[in-house]
Amino acid sequence: MRKAYDQQVESITADLVEVTRLVGSAMNRATQALLDADLQLAEAVIDFDAKVDILTSGIDERCFELIALHPGVADLRLLLGAMRISSSLERMGDLAEHVAKQARMRHPRIAAPQAVRATFAEMGGLAEAIVSKTGSVIATQDISLCVDIARHDEEMDRLHRELFTIVLSPAWKYGVEEAIDVTLLSRFYERYADHAVSVSKRVITIITGEPYVAVSLTD
Amino acid sequence: MRKAYDQQVESITADLVEVTRLVGSAMNRATQALLDADLQLAEAVIDFDAKVDILTSGIDERCFELIALHPGVADLRLLLGAMRISSSLERMGDLAEHVAKQARMRHPRIAAPQAVRATFAEMGGLAEAIVSKTGSVIATQDISLCVDIARHDEEMDRLHRELFTIVLSPAWKYGVEEAIDVTLLSRFYERYADHAVSVSKRVITIITGEPYVAVSLTD
Repeated sequence: MRKAYDQQVESITADLVEVTRLVGSAMNRATQALLDADLQLAEAVIDFDAKVDILTSGIDERCFELIALHPGVADLRLLLGAMRISSSLERMGDLAEHVAKQARMRHPRIAAPQAVRATFAEMGGLAEAIVSKTGSVIATQDISLCVDIARHDEEMDRLHRELFTIVLSPAWKYGVEEAIDVTLLSRFYERYADHAVSVSKRVITIITGEPYVAVSLTD
Repeated sequence: MRKAYDQQVESITADLVEVTRLVGSAMNRATQALLDADLQLAEAVIDFDAKVDILTSGIDERCFELIALHPGVADLRLLLGAMRISSSLERMGDLAEHVAKQARMRHPRIAAPQAVRATFAEMGGLAEAIVSKTGSVIATQDISLCVDIARHDEEMDRLHRELFTIVLSPAWKYGVEEAIDVTLLSRFYERYADHAVSVSKRVITIITGEPYVAVSLTD
């Protein structure tokens, strides 16, 4: 009984790590689709999100069943934490899909104009780094990595602000439509990083028992 | 023992309804602050969000404790559902705060230019209607109200799209900054309504046992 429970918990953890890999790949490809106005790649990312949804809702169901089938034995902190993590990862998948949809909507024009191309490429790289470390935190429970995640998130916030400066500068030679695209896209990357931070904080609450609201990664 | 449990569940439900009232009031006042460029009111909404955060994290803790203290007895579907609802409501509070912050950032200018003022007033009214019905669904478990919530959400989506049309029309006489404000503000209202829909779907899963992903409010 206990062994089956332990195996289930291991398999839930492995699946959460797998989902970080999937939503990382989704954001990576969404960024490519955005920078190259690659319609096929954008479509692929959009279709792919259903896979993330199925995996995360499967994780939720298994957490629920474990709590129900092992009352008084199941580690609530771990399993409820896993459900919250799954929900953040699912949302990260949605945000990658949003980037891809924006790329698709403007095709064949590139939704990210030349002046902000480098910044979005950088945001894509940061998203990749942050989600890969998030996967490592879940897999290894090495919460020292959470500080790196927080630093990446700060850098993402800085790029998010930088984009507003670029769009609002007198040198902005594009129109209102391009400004709206940049605003929305930038917000998707920024929220993606926020969710990764949220996941890393959940891992800390699982390991330390500290309440979520009290977890601070930067001080 | 059972009586204490029942009382706790009742008090959690009452608190969830109270939070819908609070985040409804927050969005209502945020809309006022936005339309009137009322700095004091905006500040009040921003400060107020801490209260929502405390209430929702208290609800989470009590759900957790009930599951831990009444293994095999606690209604998992109800309590895990309550935790998800609490998390959506907390996010709705954040979104009201975001609207207030945008109003504060542009003060003394009005962040919503004249051309989109009526639309934002309408979005504020819809947000109020949707959150009030969400509170009723939680309080009465009358899930027939969920159809109204879905209709309000569709109307919110329509207004969200309408704003893009206004901002991108040749008649748009404001600049890029105003367009960015409208884009972000509109997204905050649209996400607020999405979370209300999500809450109402959670209530359905609690009552019917249907999986969340399978719940559709419109067909």
